[in-house]
Amino acid sequence: MISKKMEALVKNNSVIRVMFEEGQLMAKEFGAQNVYDFSLGNPNIPAPEKVREVIKRLLEEEDPVVLHGYMNNAGFPEVRKKIADSLNKRFDTSFDENNIMMCSGAAEGLNCALKAVLNPGDEVVTFAPYFVEYKNYVANYDGILKAVQPDRKDFMPDIESFSSLINSKTKAVIINNPNNPAGVIYDEDTIKKIAAVMEEKEKEYGQEIYLIADEPYRELVYTDKKVPYVSKYYKNSIICYSFSKTLSLPGERIGYLLIPDECAGHEELFSAVTIANRVIGCVNAPSLFQKVVAECIDEKADIAFYAKNREALLNGLRECGFDCIEPEGAFYLFMKTPVEDEKEFVAEAKKEHILLVPGSSFCCSGYVRIAYCVDYGTIINSMPGFKKLAERYGISK
Amino acid sequence: MISKKMEALVKNNSVIRVMFEEGQLMAKEFGAQNVYDFSLGNPNIPAPEKVREVIKRLLEEEDPVVLHGYMNNAGFPEVRKKIADSLNKRFDTSFDENNIMMCSGAAEGLNCALKAVLNPGDEVVTFAPYFVEYKNYVANYDGILKAVQPDRKDFMPDIESFSSLINSKTKAVIINNPNNPAGVIYDEDTIKKIAAVMEEKEKEYGQEIYLIADEPYRELVYTDKKVPYVSKYYKNSIICYSFSKTLSLPGERIGYLLIPDECAGHEELFSAVTIANRVIGCVNAPSLFQKVVAECIDEKADIAFYAKNREALLNGLRECGFDCIEPEGAFYLFMKTPVEDEKEFVAEAKKEHILLVPGSSFCCSGYVRIAYCVDYGTIINSMPGFKKLAERYGISK
Repeated sequence: MISKKMEALVKNNSVIRVMFEEGQLMAKEFGAQNVYDFSLGNPNIPAPEKVREVIKRLLEEEDPVVLHGYMNNAGFPEVRKKIADSLNKRFDTSFDENNIMMCSGAAEGLNCALKAVLNPGDEVVTFAPYFVEYKNYVANYDGILKAVQPDRKDFMPDIESFSSLINSKTKAVIINNPNNPAGVIYDEDTIKKIAAVMEEKEKEYGQEIYLIADEPYRELVYTDKKVPYVSKYYKNSIICYSFSKTLSLPGERIGYLLIPDECAGHEELFSAVTIANRVIGCVNAPSLFQKVVAECIDEKADIAFYAKNREALLNGLRECGFDCIEPEGAFYLFMKTPVEDEKEFVAEAKKEHILLVPGSSFCCSGYVRIAYCVDYGTIINSMPGFKKLAERYGISK
Repeated sequence: MISKKMEALVKNNSVIRVMFEEGQLMAKEFGAQNVYDFSLGNPNIPAPEKVREVIKRLLEEEDPVVLHGYMNNAGFPEVRKKIADSLNKRFDTSFDENNIMMCSGAAEGLNCALKAVLNPGDEVVTFAPYFVEYKNYVANYDGILKAVQPDRKDFMPDIESFSSLINSKTKAVIINNPNNPAGVIYDEDTIKKIAAVMEEKEKEYGQEIYLIADEPYRELVYTDKKVPYVSKYYKNSIICYSFSKTLSLPGERIGYLLIPDECAGHEELFSAVTIANRVIGCVNAPSLFQKVVAECIDEKADIAFYAKNREALLNGLRECGFDCIEPEGAFYLFMKTPVEDEKEFVAEAKKEHILLVPGSSFCCSGYVRIAYCVDYGTIINSMPGFKKLAERYGISK
């Protein structure tokens, strides 16, 4: 009945649904407060109060025909200009509205970028551990995703292996910074190394290789580390941004895609992503929220909440004896499992009512992802369970 | 630089942009009030007042983490239930939330449906004149769109030619009712004939052929004619609905896709469209507006405005001597041009500052589309220009 491409996805999805339903059944059986669900990357802090104020004001002041109306598929020009101005102030860049297309979150931005550049059989390289949907996004356009394994010391990309994965079919590289699920930040030195390899390979193969930066977690940083603005290091950059996490608006599907002037074929590429936005069926980013994010461009959901969770979780797990990568950004902690088969650990954790995602879902086995965008109480109350797990595996201090 | 598939789209898009820019230049040169732009299908009546009220109330009453948050990719279950209940009341159906997936307008619904069912090389049949994007949507999944020419007497589908276009590769049929651009409504008799052909062909080829109904104009009807609910006539139906026109919210991208229980492979198909929604990058329909449309399900933008425009335009053009198809729904009038090459007529009309879309854009030459979702004054003030055109072509009464 359904297409061959979708068959595999439907099959795989059932597995995820079973996991989700199990969690719901557990919550029913044991009470939601006794189930520690760390499986979802769903922001759980409210949007800044200003979001509400701006919506109310827009409803009063703007003509509804404009406020809820169609506009250029790239979005309202004045919204794009405001975002460009804000980026220029923060990153010393010189963008304007012609560099920015509003889209339905970073996910749709990635799809537009990939649809714009990929021919069937083209390859895209990314860095494990990586967001599982990248594979599906690339497959939408009959491309092939290749993953570079990380240096397990610090979860920075293995640059040599990166270099060896690029060939004449490579059309794009996707980075996710800060990284979901590892929580690490690729610093300036790392970005420079990635850019150097890509420049060299562009020369070697005589073709453009686009660096697509997926940046929904850009503003969620807990250390002094800076998240480099990639277009300053590599000219053929495409940046996909989402307000989902910054403003806690994940359900509203609002973000943008940025192509700098210096990017090869900027004008044609910008037309292509804008048309992709249209023909994928998104047509344009939701109009009211375009205007909302423009007015809230300097706002940020209160990430002190995540910071507190992060510290409690990291300290708690380390005290138990677990080996954790220190999260620098996003809201995930990637933890080494005391057993090679992390799926076994996930199953054992479930017995303690702790729900985790196996690293193999991110192409990086031997680890689990713990999403700490949860109630503080969930973290504190899950610790006895983690302690028991540590004891069971003989790693408790 | 860009993919082969996008190259043609970018090239074609430049033509449309040139047309649009010409219109803007004309407005600058002659004053916007002296340019009669009938080229865009952009609703120009405000959303019902209740939309504003509901948004304000939701902002006060709902937890922002839920209101702006992720939900199941199919949408909030209670929203889907409300829509199902409303349909059941209106059409004597028996849908529930499991039949409805919220999506970013009918355009994205169509994409999800096509992604769910098409393998490369599969064929989709539609009825000319048809919305130009259908071709792009089908091409997204490497399908081939075939068009049935209308009976030019009444612009109803030519059923014999429809039957002859279906073969073993046909996976779906798209109908758009009321029709853009012809403004006609396919009545019960027509839907029954279409269904009968499809049932016969399903048997002949031993496979499902899905009837995808694109219904953004369902509530925009100016006569007593009823728009049949297709699932009551054909079991393998998929209905794509948008609130863009009904509630004048085109920029907000909110609609739904409906698959009835009796549709072959309902459960698997519903999973497939929901996953398609996710992997296309839309993820979910905008959350706030899901709740808004549920609360405004019985509201309708004031279509008396379009009705008045329709009458003035139809009478005015007929008085000039033009041969018009009487519009029954949507907000388009399809007019026979007094010269076979309608592009020549479009060029001549431009000299009178009248902007029209040639029928060949809808796979139906010899006609032009006149979108009457414009100011009433535009219609009245354009009439001297239409009169001159009629005189020029020697058809004036």
